[in-house]
Amino acid sequence: MIITLLTDFGRGSPYAAAMRGVILGMLPGVRLEDISHEIPAGDVDYAAWVLKESAPYYPAGTVHTVVVDPGVGGSRRVLGVESRGQYYLAPDNGVLKYLFHGDASARVMHLNRREFCRSPVCPTFHGRDIFAPLAAHLAMGKTLDELGEPAEPEIRGRVALPVRHRESLEGEIVFIDSFGNAVTNLEASLISEEPAEIRVRSRSIQRVSVTYSDEPPGTLMALIGSSGCLEIAVNQGHAANTLGIRTGGAVHVRFTE
Amino acid sequence: MIITLLTDFGRGSPYAAAMRGVILGMLPGVRLEDISHEIPAGDVDYAAWVLKESAPYYPAGTVHTVVVDPGVGGSRRVLGVESRGQYYLAPDNGVLKYLFHGDASARVMHLNRREFCRSPVCPTFHGRDIFAPLAAHLAMGKTLDELGEPAEPEIRGRVALPVRHRESLEGEIVFIDSFGNAVTNLEASLISEEPAEIRVRSRSIQRVSVTYSDEPPGTLMALIGSSGCLEIAVNQGHAANTLGIRTGGAVHVRFTE
Amino acid sequence: MIITLLTDFGRGSPYAAAMRGVILGMLPGVRLEDISHEIPAGDVDYAAWVLKESAPYYPAGTVHTVVVDPGVGGSRRVLGVESRGQYYLAPDNGVLKYLFHGDASARVMHLNRREFCRSPVCPTFHGRDIFAPLAAHLAMGKTLDELGEPAEPEIRGRVALPVRHRESLEGEIVFIDSFGNAVTNLEASLISEEPAEIRVRSRSIQRVSVTYSDEPPGTLMALIGSSGCLEIAVNQGHAANTLGIRTGGAVHVRFTE
Repeated sequence: MIITLLTDFGRGSPYAAAMRGVILGMLPGVRLEDISHEIPAGDVDYAAWVLKESAPYYPAGTVHTVVVDPGVGGSRRVLGVESRGQYYLAPDNGVLKYLFHGDASARVMHLNRREFCRSPVCPTFHGRDIFAPLAAHLAMGKTLDELGEPAEPEIRGRVALPVRHRESLEGEIVFIDSFGNAVTNLEASLISEEPAEIRVRSRSIQRVSVTYSDEPPGTLMALIGSSGCLEIAVNQGHAANTLGIRTGGAVHVRFTE
Repeated sequence: MIITLLTDFGRGSPYAAAMRGVILGMLPGVRLEDISHEIPAGDVDYAAWVLKESAPYYPAGTVHTVVVDPGVGGSRRVLGVESRGQYYLAPDNGVLKYLFHGDASARVMHLNRREFCRSPVCPTFHGRDIFAPLAAHLAMGKTLDELGEPAEPEIRGRVALPVRHRESLEGEIVFIDSFGNAVTNLEASLISEEPAEIRVRSRSIQRVSVTYSDEPPGTLMALIGSSGCLEIAVNQGHAANTLGIRTGGAVHVRFTE
Repeated sequence: MIITLLTDFGRGSPYAAAMRGVILGMLPGVRLEDISHEIPAGDVDYAAWVLKESAPYYPAGTVHTVVVDPGVGGSRRVLGVESRGQYYLAPDNGVLKYLFHGDASARVMHLNRREFCRSPVCPTFHGRDIFAPLAAHLAMGKTLDELGEPAEPEIRGRVALPVRHRESLEGEIVFIDSFGNAVTNLEASLISEEPAEIRVRSRSIQRVSVTYSDEPPGTLMALIGSSGCLEIAVNQGHAANTLGIRTGGAVHVRFTE
């Protein structure tokens, strides 16, 4: 009986604690996990990646509650999803894009039964008034069917796919972590052959290293990171700042001389 | 048996963990909740608002432990308060001002029984040596009477009240949240009639919206926020930075043309 | 059955949650404590101090898991240490320096049994694939002997020791906390006599105060802080920024006129 929270509320705010309080009032024995409350405000893509890289490590039955929700109170719907033995509650804004991309058989519900929410619902804080009580109900044994009705997500979100050229591969930076490592969408399986060159901005990298300390401190490098994807890094440095790169930036992998 | 912690220690510091360790050593089964450890250093008013907007959502019996305490080790007293079925431990510096303002029947004690504290008490870290053990004792079933003696708070703190003019209302910004939304002290009940104009800095807002996405991104707007008070916001933006407003700034609501 | 985590992952990252998920999958009933995930990236000395000032307050049997590990995946070893009834898992990079300095009888093991780790091990995320499962195994009752073999730490780390001159004492700033207080390595016992002067940068302090509020706001001061060491502070200010001091900076205490 684990409920996780993933929000952009910031840790200096009362909002995460308000959600936790509501859940504990309904379900005193639950285990409450903060995946993070420091997603950059409204950054749905950032949250999507953080969810993808953390949720799967939790046990089966975990209820993941994602409130990165710039459209709160508007027309976007609240989704409840069952995928690979776990549950996800999230706004229909693309924050579950990797989940939908990776699991075509995910069961998706539109959670529209307001009798399971707090009353009245504040139009600007669905985290406290809708997501928190729904998460508690799910963790207490209610089924998704009891909480809503089948639905298709309106916004599946853009999952950047690598582009294959004749002798190269074009990828995209999809996440920059707190160390400044720039993670791409190029999975290790695409780079089974040792590349001749990796280009990012106007810089060239000649090989795929195994770990950061393979290169001298300060060296720009590429390696397969903990997500299983190619990552641009600087040993003991901050690759994103060094290169001035952002998510969405291109990375080219060339295979033959 | 829940103990919450609300401090300005910062998450990169050892101080919050030291408090948690002390409590767990005394009460291994307690549920320990971090409301926040990222209150701006010494910002008693900020902490007061965060407490007001989070504590009430926790279950009855919760012990809220507030250590935003720039006067630590000086003459200020340590208060223990029972209010609406919950307990509060805090320095007598105004951090409980909303609680005292809203609950005239709160029971207030001066917690001066040092035999329930760690020994010796470090004059600069009452969080670890006084508040943590007192919180554990309360959660273990000690009563406030056993831990101290009845007292009046010396510092009740300033709660800004709205000023009614003939055809307008003058409020004050009391909190700026992590999204940059500027929360005022103007409760929704004061704005039952649709205002003709809301003025903040030299900007004018013509209506009270329901939620952020009611206005185009970047638009300055007003709405009733999750605290039940009028809030100045920018959809997908940061109102406080946009306007250059701070807590204490004035907001005027005019009702007739 | 407590496992603590101390990392430099940052709270906006998925990495801490991935570790927590792995541990919860193995040991659903464990108590998981975040000491901090906001150690400055790769700052082993900072982490060492935070560990020293928090770990001892946890109950006997606690498993402290330290992943501030810029050499991850390289030749540095993973250590398991038993000291004063607690357990420590950490890279062999000096992050346990205060522990080794203070406890000559600490039992140190090289945890090299990969059958207790996740498989495969990602060379850049030993936190998730090595430290998390090892911590869970220890908390589940495995002994250090079962997880590795006796070893000496290769890097014991530099613990700055005070230097005694004829009529003075020379110390060093070893930690700057989130309030800007600059903690030195000069323990209170070295300053039993009231000093004539404390010098830091080109500033002079004339006495050792008891607590921050002993001096007017904004005043540079010295006191014995919560670590039991001399600390340079500014009441309601940020001493480190005011003085432009950093860790490693010198502090001189002169005893006679």
